[in-house]
Amino acid sequence: MDILSIAGIVIAIGAILGGQALEGGHASSLMQLTAFIIVFGGTVGAVMVAFPKADFIRGLKLSKLAFKDSPVDMAALITQIVDMAAVARRDGVLALESKLATVNDPFLKKAVSFLVDGVDGTVARNSMEGAIEAEFEEQVMGAKVFESAGGFCPTVGIIGAVLGLIHVMENLSNPDAIGPGIAVAFVATVYGVALANLLFLPLATKIKRKLTTEKERKTLIVEGVMAIQEGLNPRVLEEKLRGLAGEHGGHSSGGDGKGPALKAA
Amino acid sequence: MDILSIAGIVIAIGAILGGQALEGGHASSLMQLTAFIIVFGGTVGAVMVAFPKADFIRGLKLSKLAFKDSPVDMAALITQIVDMAAVARRDGVLALESKLATVNDPFLKKAVSFLVDGVDGTVARNSMEGAIEAEFEEQVMGAKVFESAGGFCPTVGIIGAVLGLIHVMENLSNPDAIGPGIAVAFVATVYGVALANLLFLPLATKIKRKLTTEKERKTLIVEGVMAIQEGLNPRVLEEKLRGLAGEHGGHSSGGDGKGPALKAA
Amino acid sequence: MDILSIAGIVIAIGAILGGQALEGGHASSLMQLTAFIIVFGGTVGAVMVAFPKADFIRGLKLSKLAFKDSPVDMAALITQIVDMAAVARRDGVLALESKLATVNDPFLKKAVSFLVDGVDGTVARNSMEGAIEAEFEEQVMGAKVFESAGGFCPTVGIIGAVLGLIHVMENLSNPDAIGPGIAVAFVATVYGVALANLLFLPLATKIKRKLTTEKERKTLIVEGVMAIQEGLNPRVLEEKLRGLAGEHGGHSSGGDGKGPALKAA
Amino acid sequence: MDILSIAGIVIAIGAILGGQALEGGHASSLMQLTAFIIVFGGTVGAVMVAFPKADFIRGLKLSKLAFKDSPVDMAALITQIVDMAAVARRDGVLALESKLATVNDPFLKKAVSFLVDGVDGTVARNSMEGAIEAEFEEQVMGAKVFESAGGFCPTVGIIGAVLGLIHVMENLSNPDAIGPGIAVAFVATVYGVALANLLFLPLATKIKRKLTTEKERKTLIVEGVMAIQEGLNPRVLEEKLRGLAGEHGGHSSGGDGKGPALKAA
Amino acid sequence: MDILSIAGIVIAIGAILGGQALEGGHASSLMQLTAFIIVFGGTVGAVMVAFPKADFIRGLKLSKLAFKDSPVDMAALITQIVDMAAVARRDGVLALESKLATVNDPFLKKAVSFLVDGVDGTVARNSMEGAIEAEFEEQVMGAKVFESAGGFCPTVGIIGAVLGLIHVMENLSNPDAIGPGIAVAFVATVYGVALANLLFLPLATKIKRKLTTEKERKTLIVEGVMAIQEGLNPRVLEEKLRGLAGEHGGHSSGGDGKGPALKAA
Repeated sequence: MDILSIAGIVIAIGAILGGQALEGGHASSLMQLTAFIIVFGGTVGAVMVAFPKADFIRGLKLSKLAFKDSPVDMAALITQIVDMAAVARRDGVLALESKLATVNDPFLKKAVSFLVDGVDGTVARNSMEGAIEAEFEEQVMGAKVFESAGGFCPTVGIIGAVLGLIHVMENLSNPDAIGPGIAVAFVATVYGVALANLLFLPLATKIKRKLTTEKERKTLIVEGVMAIQEGLNPRVLEEKLRGLAGEHGGHSSGGDGKGPALKAA
Repeated sequence: MDILSIAGIVIAIGAILGGQALEGGHASSLMQLTAFIIVFGGTVGAVMVAFPKADFIRGLKLSKLAFKDSPVDMAALITQIVDMAAVARRDGVLALESKLATVNDPFLKKAVSFLVDGVDGTVARNSMEGAIEAEFEEQVMGAKVFESAGGFCPTVGIIGAVLGLIHVMENLSNPDAIGPGIAVAFVATVYGVALANLLFLPLATKIKRKLTTEKERKTLIVEGVMAIQEGLNPRVLEEKLRGLAGEHGGHSSGGDGKGPALKAA
Repeated sequence: MDILSIAGIVIAIGAILGGQALEGGHASSLMQLTAFIIVFGGTVGAVMVAFPKADFIRGLKLSKLAFKDSPVDMAALITQIVDMAAVARRDGVLALESKLATVNDPFLKKAVSFLVDGVDGTVARNSMEGAIEAEFEEQVMGAKVFESAGGFCPTVGIIGAVLGLIHVMENLSNPDAIGPGIAVAFVATVYGVALANLLFLPLATKIKRKLTTEKERKTLIVEGVMAIQEGLNPRVLEEKLRGLAGEHGGHSSGGDGKGPALKAA
Repeated sequence: MDILSIAGIVIAIGAILGGQALEGGHASSLMQLTAFIIVFGGTVGAVMVAFPKADFIRGLKLSKLAFKDSPVDMAALITQIVDMAAVARRDGVLALESKLATVNDPFLKKAVSFLVDGVDGTVARNSMEGAIEAEFEEQVMGAKVFESAGGFCPTVGIIGAVLGLIHVMENLSNPDAIGPGIAVAFVATVYGVALANLLFLPLATKIKRKLTTEKERKTLIVEGVMAIQEGLNPRVLEEKLRGLAGEHGGHSSGGDGKGPALKAA
Repeated sequence: MDILSIAGIVIAIGAILGGQALEGGHASSLMQLTAFIIVFGGTVGAVMVAFPKADFIRGLKLSKLAFKDSPVDMAALITQIVDMAAVARRDGVLALESKLATVNDPFLKKAVSFLVDGVDGTVARNSMEGAIEAEFEEQVMGAKVFESAGGFCPTVGIIGAVLGLIHVMENLSNPDAIGPGIAVAFVATVYGVALANLLFLPLATKIKRKLTTEKERKTLIVEGVMAIQEGLNPRVLEEKLRGLAGEHGGHSSGGDGKGPALKAA
C-alpha cells in the first residue's frame, strides 16, 4: 500500500469538508448529483474521444500503481549483478547459465540470457534499450490519460457552472431561487477544480514517477550486464552502479576505504 | 469504427444535456444561433489565417482518422518479417523477390524492394527514415489544425460573451431583458469551452496518437528489414521487434523457454 | 495571394459583427477610439521594448509573407535535381557548370556552384546547413514579434478594461452612466482578445509554417546536391527526395512499377 | 544563511501587511483559520498523492537548502585542480596519491582516486557523469515537490473561495452576513495565491538553481581530472576551467599577459 | 541608446494614460501608493526568495543592456577573420602573432592566441565552446530574474486587488465607500499586469535576444578561427561565415560573380 496516496486523498478531502464545517456549512450542500453528472460525464467523454481504447484501459489499470507500494531494493540488485560479474570474471560468461535459475526478476533474467547465449553486445544493448523505451512510452500513455482528465476537468466544471448560471438568469424573476441556484452552479466549479487538482493530476504525477523509477532500474540492469560482457572490474562496476542508482554518488562515506581497491582492471 | 470516439462524444453531450435537464433547464436555452455563428465562425476564420491551405484541408481529411478503427496487427507483422529473415538467411536476400507479391503493406513492400535491389544499407535506412519523419511532420500538421482550433475557440467564446454583455449593459434601463440577455451571453462561453474541450482538443490528441502509432509501425519495419540485410539471427530479431512493439519487453511469460534458443548468430 | 489568410480574417470579423447584428446590437458600439488607443498602443509599446529594431522591422516585413501565395513546386525541383544527377553521372560533376545558367533558384545555384568548384563535401554541407539554420533562426524572430504581440495584447486589453471599470466605479453616484461605461470598458477586452486570437497569433503561426516549408525546401536541395557529389544512383535519389518531400513515402501508388528500376548503383 | 531568502519573505509579507494597514485594514482580517486549513491541508494532501514518500521527504529536507548559504569557491577549486595537474605532469599520476589526504571535497577525492587507481578514462568519465546526472535527477525531485505545491495551491485557494461563496449564497436572506462572508471567502484566494507565489514557487526556483550550481561544480571536477589523465598543459587547463566556471570567458582582462604562456603542450 | 526600448515604454504608458484622459479619467486615480507598495514589494520579495544573490545582482546590472545600443558589425568582423585566414595561408599561422596587437575584441584575441600558441584544435574548440556556453548560461539567469518578476507580478497584483475587495466588503454598510474602494483595489490589478507586460517580460525578452546575438557572434569567431587552423580556403570561409551571420544565405545577389572564385582549396 502506498500510504501517502491514501493519506493524501483523506487529508485533502478532510481539510475541505472540515473547513466547510468550521464555517458552519453543511457537507450536504457539496453533494449535487447533477453537477457530478456534468463534470464526471463530460470529462470521461472527452478522455474517451482523446485516447484509443488500449490507452484508455491501460490508464484505468495503471491507477492501481499509484496506490501500490513498489519498493525497489536497488542495493540487493547491485549486489546480485556484482556477484555475477565476479563469477563471469573467474569462470567465464557461460558460468552464469547455472545462476539463471536463481534470478527472479524477468528483465534481469532476459538480459543475462542474452549474455549466456553470446548475442553480440551492440545488438543486445540496442534490443534491450529499445524494449525499455518502447515499454515506457506505452505505459506513460496511461499516466497521460489522467493528466488529460485533469486538463479537461476544470473546464468541464466551468461548463457546468455556466449552465447553472444560465438557469439562474432565466429565473431572475424569482429572487428566492437566486442564491441557492448560484450555490448549485458553484458546486460544479468545485468538482472540476477538486477532481483535477486533488485526484487526476496528482495521480498522473505519481504514476509517471513510478514508471520512471522502473525504467531507471531496467537501465541499470542493462548497464550492469553489458559491463559484465565487457569484463569490467567488479569493484569499478559496483562503484558505477551505485552512482547510477543515485546513492549519493559523491558523498559515499566509505570512499576512503574503497579507493585502494579500485586497482585497474 | 473507433467506438470510443463516438461513445465519448455521446457521453459528454449526454452528461451536459442530462445534467441541464435534471436541474430543470431546457435544452433549447442552449441553442443560440448567434452564439454559434460568432464562436464557430470566429474559430474557423482564425484557423484559416493560421494555416496554409494544404494543412487546413489535411486537417479536415484527418478528422476521419479519429473515428476510424485502425487495428494494427503487430504480431502478424513481426511474424511476416521474421519469416522473411529466415528465407533470406537460408536462400539469400534475392530469394525475397518472389515473396514481394504477397506483401500487402505498401511501406513494407518498398522496404523489401530496397533490400532486393541491393541498395546500400545506409542509403536505404536514411531514405526510409527521412520519408517516415517527413510524412509524420506533414500529417501532424493536420492534428495541429484541431489543436489550434481548440486554442482559439474558448477565447472566441469569451469575445461572444463580452459582446453579449455589452449588449446587455446598453439596455440596463430595461431590467426584464437583463437576465435572459446574460443567459444568451453565457451560451457563447459554453460553446467556446465545450467545442474546445469536448471536440477539438480530444480529436487532436487522438489523431496525433494514431499518427504516432503508424510512425512506430513503420520504424519497426525499417529496423526489421535493415536487420535482415545485416543477417541478424531470426530469433534475436523476433526478440528485438517484440521489444520495440512494446509487448511487455521485460515481462514476457514465455521468457524461460526462449532463452536457450537465442544461440549466437 | 494567400486566399485563406484574407478569407479567414473576413470570416472571423464577419461572424463577430454578424452575430452582433443578429442580437440587435450596433457595430458602432464596438468602435471605441480610446479602447483602441490603449490596446494597440500598449501592445506596440511592449513589443518595441521586447525586440531589437532589426527584429521589429523584420516582423513588419514578414507580415506580407502571410498574405502572399508561395507555391513550392517540389516535384519540378526534384526533377531538376535528378536530371542534374543523371548528367553528373554520365559526364562528371564539371558538366553541371553549363547547366548553372538555367538554374533560377539562387540557393540551388549556390549549392551547384559548390559542387562545380569542387569544394570538399563536408565543408560544403556544413556551410550550407549552417546558412539555412542561421537564416531560419533570424527570420523566425519576425514571426516571434507577432507571437509576442499576441501574448501581450489580451493582458493590455485587461488593463484597458480595468481602467474603464475604475472610471465607472468613481462615478457610481451617476447610475445612468454605469451600463454604457461598463460597455466601453468591455470593448477593450474584446479588442485585446480579438487582435490576439484573430490576427497576431494566427499570423505568427502561418509565417512560421511558411518559413519551415522554405527551410525544408533548402534542406532537400542540400541533400540532393550532396547525393550528386557522392554519386548516388539517380533513381534511388529520386525515391529519397520524394520521401523527404513528404509525398506519401509509404503509399506511392506507382510503387510496383518502380521497384525493379531500383537496381543497385 | 541565505539572507536573500529570508529578506525576500520578510519584504513580501511586510509589503502586503503594510499596504493593508495603509488602506486602513486590519491584519486580523487576513487571519482565517478555516481558510488556512482548506488551502494548506488541500495542498499538502495533493502533494502527498503526487509524490512517492522518498521524494516527499527529500523535498522537506531540501527546503533547508534554500535558506543555507552555500558559497562555492570556484577559483580555489580550479587552483587545486591545476596544482594537481602540474604535479601529475612532473611526477606522474601516481604522485597524486600523497595529495589525496589533503583533499576535503568528497567528489574531488573520488575523482582523483579513479585517476590514481588507473581506472580506464572512458569508464571513469561515464561512471562519474552517470552519478552526477543520477544524483541531480533525484535531488531535483525535491524541488519539484515545491513546484507542484505552488501549482496546486492557487486552485485549492479557489476551491476555498467557492466554498465560502456557496455558504454566502445560501444565507442571502441575511444581508448583514454577505460582506464579511465574502471577505472570508476571499482570504482563501489570497492564501492560495500568496503561498504559491511568495513561498512555494520561489523556493522551488532557488533550490533548483543551487542544485544546478552544484552539478556544474562536479562537472568541472570531472573535466579537470579527466584532462589531468590526458596530460593537458596546466595553463591550457586553467584557461579551460575558468571558461567553464563562467568567469567571463571572453573578457578576462589579463588576456594579454597570458597569451604567450599558452605554448602548445 | 536602444531607442526602441525607451520609445516602447513611452508609447505604452502614453497610450494608457492618454486613453484614460480621453475617457475623462484622471491620471491621479491611477496613482495609489498602497497598491504600489503591495505589488512592487511583493514582487521584489518573491524574486529575492527565488534567486541567489549573484543572479539577482546580475539581473539588475543586465537591465542596462536592454537600453544600450549594441551594434555588432558582423561584416567587419568577417572581413577581419578572412584577412587573417589569407595571412595564415600565405605566411603560416605564426604570422598572425604580429596581427594580435591590432585585435580589439577580447574574445577574438583569445581565439587567435590559441591558434598562435599552437594549442590542439579539439582542445581549443572545446575550451572556447565550453566558455561561450557557460557564460551564456550564467548571463541568461539575469534575464530570468525579469522573466520571473513578470510571472509573479500579476498574481501579486491579484493579491492586492483581493485585499482591497476584502476591505470594501467589510465596509459594505457605508455605500459611499464602495465605488472608490473598488477603484483602489483595481489599481493593484493594473499595476501587476502593466509592470509584467509593459516592463518585466519585454525587458527579459530583449536581454535574452541580445545575449543570444552575442553568443552567435562568439560562435562565429570560433568557427572562423578553427577554419583558419584547418587551412580552409579564405573565399570558402567568407561564404561560410556570411551564411552563419544570416546574411541571406540563399539570396546573395552577388552569387553569380562569386561562383567561379570558389575554386577548390
